[in-house]
Amino acid sequence: MTAISPLAPARFPDLPPVPGVRLAAAEARLRYRGRPDLLLASFAPGTAVAGTLTRSRTAAPPVEWCRALLGEEDGSARALVVNAGNANAATGERGLAVVRRTAEAAAALIGCRADEVYVCSTGVIGEQMPVDRLTAALPGLHARLADDAWAEAAAAIMTTDTFPKGACAQAEIAGQPVTIAGIAKGSGMIAPDMATMLAYVFTDAGLPAAVLRPALRRAVNRSFNAITVDGDTSTNDTCLLFATGAARHPRIARAGDRRLAGFRAALEAVLSDLARQIVRDGEGARKFVAITVRGAASEAAARRLGLAIANSPLVKTAIAGEDPNWGRIVAVVGRAGVDFDQAQLAIRIGAERAAGGGVADPAFDEPAAARHMQGQEIEIAVEVGAGPGTATVWTCDLTHGYIDINADYRS
Amino acid sequence: MTAISPLAPARFPDLPPVPGVRLAAAEARLRYRGRPDLLLASFAPGTAVAGTLTRSRTAAPPVEWCRALLGEEDGSARALVVNAGNANAATGERGLAVVRRTAEAAAALIGCRADEVYVCSTGVIGEQMPVDRLTAALPGLHARLADDAWAEAAAAIMTTDTFPKGACAQAEIAGQPVTIAGIAKGSGMIAPDMATMLAYVFTDAGLPAAVLRPALRRAVNRSFNAITVDGDTSTNDTCLLFATGAARHPRIARAGDRRLAGFRAALEAVLSDLARQIVRDGEGARKFVAITVRGAASEAAARRLGLAIANSPLVKTAIAGEDPNWGRIVAVVGRAGVDFDQAQLAIRIGAERAAGGGVADPAFDEPAAARHMQGQEIEIAVEVGAGPGTATVWTCDLTHGYIDINADYRS
Repeated sequence: MTAISPLAPARFPDLPPVPGVRLAAAEARLRYRGRPDLLLASFAPGTAVAGTLTRSRTAAPPVEWCRALLGEEDGSARALVVNAGNANAATGERGLAVVRRTAEAAAALIGCRADEVYVCSTGVIGEQMPVDRLTAALPGLHARLADDAWAEAAAAIMTTDTFPKGACAQAEIAGQPVTIAGIAKGSGMIAPDMATMLAYVFTDAGLPAAVLRPALRRAVNRSFNAITVDGDTSTNDTCLLFATGAARHPRIARAGDRRLAGFRAALEAVLSDLARQIVRDGEGARKFVAITVRGAASEAAARRLGLAIANSPLVKTAIAGEDPNWGRIVAVVGRAGVDFDQAQLAIRIGAERAAGGGVADPAFDEPAAARHMQGQEIEIAVEVGAGPGTATVWTCDLTHGYIDINADYRS
Repeated sequence: MTAISPLAPARFPDLPPVPGVRLAAAEARLRYRGRPDLLLASFAPGTAVAGTLTRSRTAAPPVEWCRALLGEEDGSARALVVNAGNANAATGERGLAVVRRTAEAAAALIGCRADEVYVCSTGVIGEQMPVDRLTAALPGLHARLADDAWAEAAAAIMTTDTFPKGACAQAEIAGQPVTIAGIAKGSGMIAPDMATMLAYVFTDAGLPAAVLRPALRRAVNRSFNAITVDGDTSTNDTCLLFATGAARHPRIARAGDRRLAGFRAALEAVLSDLARQIVRDGEGARKFVAITVRGAASEAAARRLGLAIANSPLVKTAIAGEDPNWGRIVAVVGRAGVDFDQAQLAIRIGAERAAGGGVADPAFDEPAAARHMQGQEIEIAVEVGAGPGTATVWTCDLTHGYIDINADYRS
């Protein structure tokens, strides 16, 4: 077991109950021993759901199962089953049969249809799931469902994570309070371009899927799609948002309704918090890095530049080495496939301006920048022109720890 | 100084003289001490030139200088100046003035125009060049020009390289022998999508730029554009091909002339040899990895899949850990942005078939695959369908050495 990330938060946050949501976790011994590896969540009847899933061409059978369920316009969710240790990926028809058996077993316990059960997996790719052990553990989980089992739930979905990840926020819809709580996992094989890794967000808001979907997409773009640990995107990336409708606000049918502004902001805050926790638990991470790009032609262009910097092994190793080597940032933004005028390029490390007008700033206080890089929280700001596009992305440094973890993860 | 790569060839090859080409190297102390860091080459009058340059938006002033010279349809080359230690990148107008002064100084010695002098730089980005030390070293170099100084020339352009790189081949054009000899450097900040790093190839063939250009482009695509160390593309990538015309074959004006088949094959062999030497000197490399993709829709799609695998930190660390973890390859090809049918996916590690039909091969001999991975030469083959597209790419593993080198390259 790896030591807890030095960037971990002091403790798991106090997540409030979300009316209509109950949770339980257990040790099904699917791969790990001595830790929970299976999560069951149940939802009140009428719970709406929206999701973003990996766009990988080798998406795992459980992802394909969720994609099919989400494709139904008026689909509802009654349960969620997540296991850790085995990704049920590259398992073909047999892997899909495992998903179906899991959904049917959970549905029988909850008293719902199998197509109301969302099934997700994370872990090693290419091994068949010991499905009997999985279904055998479900009745015990069902008997222990509770509205406060957040920490156990977050722990049960971890793989190489060194701490469980949770976040919550309160908002109002038309003057009525609603709660949003979420858990996530992820530490390696983390890159955006879709939902990243596993994240489950629960709210008692009463919103149909047609309203949830665009709100989730926008929040995912600014959170999970703005982080990277290693540029490697997983076969199982899934982010699901469940809305039980237990809150008392008036029904809202339009995604553009102004009364949703507070809910949308709170949703983005929860997802962004979870995303940054994933980066803080990046495999081998010793530094948390926020990269802000301004002046690009669009938000998408700014994010592309930011992610190119965040994915560069040369930048990430320079950060590990506490070297304010801004020349490597010049090289990365140059090859990122985004048009800009080099003569307008400016780079800041912490509060220090390293480059302006595309060349070294003669007043650059390199020792001050080096001191900033000796800290655990690194800020890099890049300006590429006068455009309206701004984006912040988050990543971690690339250290010997990453190699140690990944040279022998399976064994 | 880092130890010589364990993948290095036994010795620098014996490169023959190329009629019309003379070389000299010296220690100009631009950054390094106790090793050559400046190369001068001179060419016979009438030498034609073709080149491929980085497409980076932050291309260095010397790259822009070469791009301008190559843009002249009937341009000729009389000299080449290359320095190591300072990339003259992110140096703006002052950096361009350095290039011009260098070209003028070399031109005065050779007796040619400044726009017949190609100038290239490699090293740290963002620092101004000590140009006086550079020009002061040129007269001594000019006095020592020789036709056999290949090893010194290859050594003078190294940065983090641990061994000098050279290759040669003989071919016939219309029954007359021609020689091709080349040198290259590169070890980190190596990724394709253009010419990669610095490579200079010399021939006595008498071919105009219009014939050289397509031959060079094709050979670069299958050599320098098919390797990667870390996915980071440099600001200074340059590959130049000089043809002195000293050979006695009849003049050939059309790029498609069948009499060029042997020359094109020999050119590709030299570039491919140099490219693979760069991978063998990849920063921290302990294993040389050849990845062949078959059955894609096109050669370009196959290369994209191969490079995605070759750039994946998870695959590269698994190789470092000698773990035949084919599931990571499944994940990478899935996210590479190339369409294919997962049900046709097959993966081989060495001679062992790990997966077929998109799932684990029940007959996979994993211990045999693990033994293959304990060697220094790793072969991975991936089939994605029945298309005609095939490509081989080359990379190295990602080790602690890469992080050691790059966490403190500048200091």
